[in-house]
Amino acid sequence: MSDWVLDEKLAADSVFVVDWPLSQLRLVNDSRFPWLVLVPRVSNIEEIFQLSDEDQQQLLQESSQLAKVLSTSFKADKLNVAALGNVVRQLHVHHIARYVDDCCYPSPVWGMGEAVPYQDIELRQRVDELRTALSF
Amino acid sequence: MSDWVLDEKLAADSVFVVDWPLSQLRLVNDSRFPWLVLVPRVSNIEEIFQLSDEDQQQLLQESSQLAKVLSTSFKADKLNVAALGNVVRQLHVHHIARYVDDCCYPSPVWGMGEAVPYQDIELRQRVDELRTALSF
Repeated sequence: MSDWVLDEKLAADSVFVVDWPLSQLRLVNDSRFPWLVLVPRVSNIEEIFQLSDEDQQQLLQESSQLAKVLSTSFKADKLNVAALGNVVRQLHVHHIARYVDDCCYPSPVWGMGEAVPYQDIELRQRVDELRTALSF
Repeated sequence: MSDWVLDEKLAADSVFVVDWPLSQLRLVNDSRFPWLVLVPRVSNIEEIFQLSDEDQQQLLQESSQLAKVLSTSFKADKLNVAALGNVVRQLHVHHIARYVDDCCYPSPVWGMGEAVPYQDIELRQRVDELRTALSF
């Protein structure tokens, strides 16, 4: 994994939360929803099926751990879990906590309006909240 | 799995392709892209993490098999793999072969324009093509 470098657009649009065994977990800087991306730290991979079987298993485990936290600690009404990559080709898996009263429900979030960046203090609080909730 | 019943909207919007060990594979009746859904035949499940560990593994395997076929036989430029469920709550995982010259690229497909149903003969051909490609 040593030559893995985070895509520049992902780096600009999100902040670091934690490194898990396979993936870097990042919070998208859009306060409209708790929106996280899991980015496997493997170079030159665009699709889940291109990962080794072992890495696919690990990604599934990390995805399910994150999903449980978004469902329970963040009381999501519905989760949206998606590997799209039409714009940023580096494999990343979106995990978004959706609420029936959020800005855009039931539409998917991509391309819906403009991101509302967190205030600095909100961003730090949200990252702290996530780290606490994710420390199982 | 015996009391599992396919959601009515999924049934109306897609056609049966094959039953795999866990999931029913269905083709969405929208000729703009090869668009399939995997629907685990397990009742009362809305999120992947709610499946048993064994069923999650099986879903991953079925998803990767399908993704490989969409990537190779259908020569997708990019795959979009997503469990959203904001409208239809029954767990279903979209697998869409995207092309840089399709109607909507790089936007996600949901809510973009109107579906273009297949002609009857096209639909039968596409299902046959899929069954051949998926018989590994």
